Amino acid sequence: MLSVYLSGEIHTDWREQIIEGAKGLDVEFSAPVTDHGASDDCGVEILGAEENKYWHDHKGAMVNGIRTRKGIEEADVVVVRFGDKYKQWNAAFDAGYASAMGKSLIILQPPEHDHALKEVDAAALAVTREPGQVVDILRYVLEGTLPK
Amino acid sequence: MLSVYLSGEIHTDWREQIIEGAKGLDVEFSAPVTDHGASDDCGVEILGAEENKYWHDHKGAMVNGIRTRKGIEEADVVVVRFGDKYKQWNAAFDAGYASAMGKSLIILQPPEHDHALKEVDAAALAVTREPGQVVDILRYVLEGTLPK
Amino acid sequence: MLSVYLSGEIHTDWREQIIEGAKGLDVEFSAPVTDHGASDDCGVEILGAEENKYWHDHKGAMVNGIRTRKGIEEADVVVVRFGDKYKQWNAAFDAGYASAMGKSLIILQPPEHDHALKEVDAAALAVTREPGQVVDILRYVLEGTLPK
Amino acid sequence: MLSVYLSGEIHTDWREQIIEGAKGLDVEFSAPVTDHGASDDCGVEILGAEENKYWHDHKGAMVNGIRTRKGIEEADVVVVRFGDKYKQWNAAFDAGYASAMGKSLIILQPPEHDHALKEVDAAALAVTREPGQVVDILRYVLEGTLPK
Amino acid sequence: MLSVYLSGEIHTDWREQIIEGAKGLDVEFSAPVTDHGASDDCGVEILGAEENKYWHDHKGAMVNGIRTRKGIEEADVVVVRFGDKYKQWNAAFDAGYASAMGKSLIILQPPEHDHALKEVDAAALAVTREPGQVVDILRYVLEGTLPK
Amino acid sequence: MLSVYLSGEIHTDWREQIIEGAKGLDVEFSAPVTDHGASDDCGVEILGAEENKYWHDHKGAMVNGIRTRKGIEEADVVVVRFGDKYKQWNAAFDAGYASAMGKSLIILQPPEHDHALKEVDAAALAVTREPGQVVDILRYVLEGTLPK
Amino acid sequence: MLSVYLSGEIHTDWREQIIEGAKGLDVEFSAPVTDHGASDDCGVEILGAEENKYWHDHKGAMVNGIRTRKGIEEADVVVVRFGDKYKQWNAAFDAGYASAMGKSLIILQPPEHDHALKEVDAAALAVTREPGQVVDILRYVLEGTLPK
Amino acid sequence: MLSVYLSGEIHTDWREQIIEGAKGLDVEFSAPVTDHGASDDCGVEILGAEENKYWHDHKGAMVNGIRTRKGIEEADVVVVRFGDKYKQWNAAFDAGYASAMGKSLIILQPPEHDHALKEVDAAALAVTREPGQVVDILRYVLEGTLPK
Repeated sequence: MLSVYLSGEIHTDWREQIIEGAKGLDVEFSAPVTDHGASDDCGVEILGAEENKYWHDHKGAMVNGIRTRKGIEEADVVVVRFGDKYKQWNAAFDAGYASAMGKSLIILQPPEHDHALKEVDAAALAVTREPGQVVDILRYVLEGTLPK
Repeated sequence: MLSVYLSGEIHTDWREQIIEGAKGLDVEFSAPVTDHGASDDCGVEILGAEENKYWHDHKGAMVNGIRTRKGIEEADVVVVRFGDKYKQWNAAFDAGYASAMGKSLIILQPPEHDHALKEVDAAALAVTREPGQVVDILRYVLEGTLPK
Repeated sequence: MLSVYLSGEIHTDWREQIIEGAKGLDVEFSAPVTDHGASDDCGVEILGAEENKYWHDHKGAMVNGIRTRKGIEEADVVVVRFGDKYKQWNAAFDAGYASAMGKSLIILQPPEHDHALKEVDAAALAVTREPGQVVDILRYVLEGTLPK
Repeated sequence: MLSVYLSGEIHTDWREQIIEGAKGLDVEFSAPVTDHGASDDCGVEILGAEENKYWHDHKGAMVNGIRTRKGIEEADVVVVRFGDKYKQWNAAFDAGYASAMGKSLIILQPPEHDHALKEVDAAALAVTREPGQVVDILRYVLEGTLPK
Repeated sequence: MLSVYLSGEIHTDWREQIIEGAKGLDVEFSAPVTDHGASDDCGVEILGAEENKYWHDHKGAMVNGIRTRKGIEEADVVVVRFGDKYKQWNAAFDAGYASAMGKSLIILQPPEHDHALKEVDAAALAVTREPGQVVDILRYVLEGTLPK
Repeated sequence: MLSVYLSGEIHTDWREQIIEGAKGLDVEFSAPVTDHGASDDCGVEILGAEENKYWHDHKGAMVNGIRTRKGIEEADVVVVRFGDKYKQWNAAFDAGYASAMGKSLIILQPPEHDHALKEVDAAALAVTREPGQVVDILRYVLEGTLPK
Repeated sequence: MLSVYLSGEIHTDWREQIIEGAKGLDVEFSAPVTDHGASDDCGVEILGAEENKYWHDHKGAMVNGIRTRKGIEEADVVVVRFGDKYKQWNAAFDAGYASAMGKSLIILQPPEHDHALKEVDAAALAVTREPGQVVDILRYVLEGTLPK
Repeated sequence: MLSVYLSGEIHTDWREQIIEGAKGLDVEFSAPVTDHGASDDCGVEILGAEENKYWHDHKGAMVNGIRTRKGIEEADVVVVRFGDKYKQWNAAFDAGYASAMGKSLIILQPPEHDHALKEVDAAALAVTREPGQVVDILRYVLEGTLPK
């Protein structure tokens, strides 16, 4: 059984595509909370409001960190997705964290970011362009078969 | 003696400001190669040209990785600077890598990136706005004195 | 499945509140022996009496250490509860031990101890006031849902 | 050369007694910042004021954490002092942190705290009552000679 | 579930006593091969005879090492038994190995060896005299109940 | 249960012999993909063609690395087979990697390579000549019985 | 200061070329004993003769292992050279060992071995063809300057 | 520079022979306190008398543990000497502890103990009979020269 953590942007359905494509494979997926509102507000909703936006964000990031840390530490493979929008520094942070822990890293990104991601890609075992390629790798790693 | 690695953007003189400000303190600084051209081309200049830009970048990132890895592993404190321009994913990657290795992390960033950097900041022991604040922290950590 | 170790005072029913509140969540709880008499005397009851009270305590603390060590090492999350009475140095010791092992730390304490616990809180991912908040965090971490 | 970190209360001169007594021994001492005011305010003095006392304390604890972490990680021996006053949870936290990192732990405490400190003492290699005993241990460990 | 490795002499039935006594507890035991002849000859029986007795022994010790290493690494608790006869250096070696790996160590030995075993005992969490005491500890650690 | 990774040449049926011989033992085997064509081409088939043969190979080796890394990291025992043909540097690389991770190493090689493999053999717990000997070791390690 | 271990074949002067080329750089080199006769016979010369050639080799490989292990563990960078002759499995073993320890790996090999070394190369940060390129990398890593 | 810890019996001058023989080599030696009386009584002399002999020994063993732990942890090579008398379980314990930490182990023992020490020897890189052989190994490891 392969444990896979899906890190990165939460605005498109790339996780669903991978999970759907990997049906039938012996894979267990984990991911951050992808409900954007809940993810942003979990800290203050549970632990109490903050006037200062910085501490509002801080409390949420800490609570989300419990899930992220467990997800990455238990993963065999960490897939990190970079999309077209936003800074996505948390995705790059996860990639660095996973890399230092010796996890196998797969990057999913459009070619126009190749230069900006060259240090991240250099730490990865595969750089993919489409969710289907991630599925192909998981199938090959688990079953030794290539796409037809 | 405190060993400090200065990670992040290479277009402004923030490193020089910190090094200058820390004169007289028992600190040893290290950093990536900040000659932009050399940093981009070191792979192909030393190991041979590549037609494909992706592999051109890849070879350079790998060679730079020798220096980065040593710098972070030997550091007590890793300062990561996020500026106004560029994607700076390698900075966030370094922050994640340093965090997973248990290094003390200091972030240097303008307030407008607070929300985008909340997960990175949540892993840090200090979030600073000016190079002088980094110097103040180093002085306090080493000598126990606060800025007047 | 999330493994959670409940460390700290054994005189109120905070553990029962958390376990009850977390019913239906995929959590496995562990904890020290909370029978105060058994916990104090386990060393001499099993290994033989000691005239000197120091060694009486020492033998008990060592035997309890077998359970504590296993509980913390297998935990994803360590919750440490500080109450109003007693020194509770073992709770703070567990927090330090868990922190050095990279465990996600949740502190449960009344606000009047904020200043005295500031170093402990600084190592935590969440500081809670009520057992129900711990449950809310566990539910959010596992299922991504916030309290209504 | 033996590296020794002196953790715990900052209101009496126990550190000075140990350092003075160890003169001539091949020992390097480190310690937290013992200027109480600087230690409490370092966060806001350097990084900016906070209205909320909790975050005021938090920022200071984080900055002090840079020094504490380095001190403990580089130590061969961590001496933790418990006095008669205050909660001293940070001292117990340091003891737990040092213990999980495999450091040799020496506790310095009055006998009236024996029962409350039994779990901490059980993790230590020596429990002392006077600073002079710590010096005697350091001398014995380094030179193999006992006090006359 | 508690995983317990039973190391040490293979000439008396102490392992059977512990396993019998622990019936009904959630414990999984492992141990070296206790068939003395098989243990001594496994190397040459499987890998081919050696003229030199030293290499005969060496090959056997290496093959047995596969089982020992796995047993200790997977154990939560390592029980090491010292009896009245033989050198039993392999038992003391296992104790040192387990100690360096942070395992909880229980020693089982007659009082006449107390002085000779003082360094080994100092690394243990309990020193027992009878197999029944080991069972009592396992029951207490798992269920929190003391012997009546 | 013993987890065994079978590393090395993929041109003879030595893996099948071991797996067949170990039927009925509590062993879980893993191995690299042994379909030679798939193994060579998996990188370009999934991630896109490369003109340069070096990068063609590189992409495949990286993807295969995901499987190899997981197999070795989860193994208790790593069996490394050296045959008569080819350079087999990847087999020796796996042996070094497994050795640094503290895995129990069993080498399977014909005697004519003894001198060339002396450093590799020196890191192993057993050097075997036939697949049946590997099975005999696994049976002895698990059940304590020797071949009749 | 950069610590570099030079592993691999001992029949050509590649080590001398690198050491000569790196004069003036802040590098400390280490390497195995390159006196072939001494390296082969050190075991039996010091520890006593063996009739069986296998144990003759084994004793030598073990003694050489003391030096190799220290060299690799203290290195920042491990350079592994593959030449045209011999099996060189010890070089590949060193590469795997260094890789698992997170060392920066530089491979030095002629292009005709690219396919056979693809798994080894995939673990490296640079693949060089000439000793001068290794020197260029060391200079760049230390001083940030490229060859003119 | 090679750091060597000399563990084991303290009744003959084997340490002096090795240190004398190694003059001129770049070696730093460490060892336990070899003043037998001081070693036995250091605990009670510094920390206060115990009526119970067991705790008398225990306190001494703990204090000596500070020195032993530092010595072994900083060593590249641990030499463990077994003589003709006494149980020497602490020597075997040190060997196990050093082995688990990945130290290079050299055993020094008379041939009559070969069978009893086979598990300890199996973890060593060299088994020597005379202090001079230890010196020969240190010289070879450091300078690559064999005894004439």
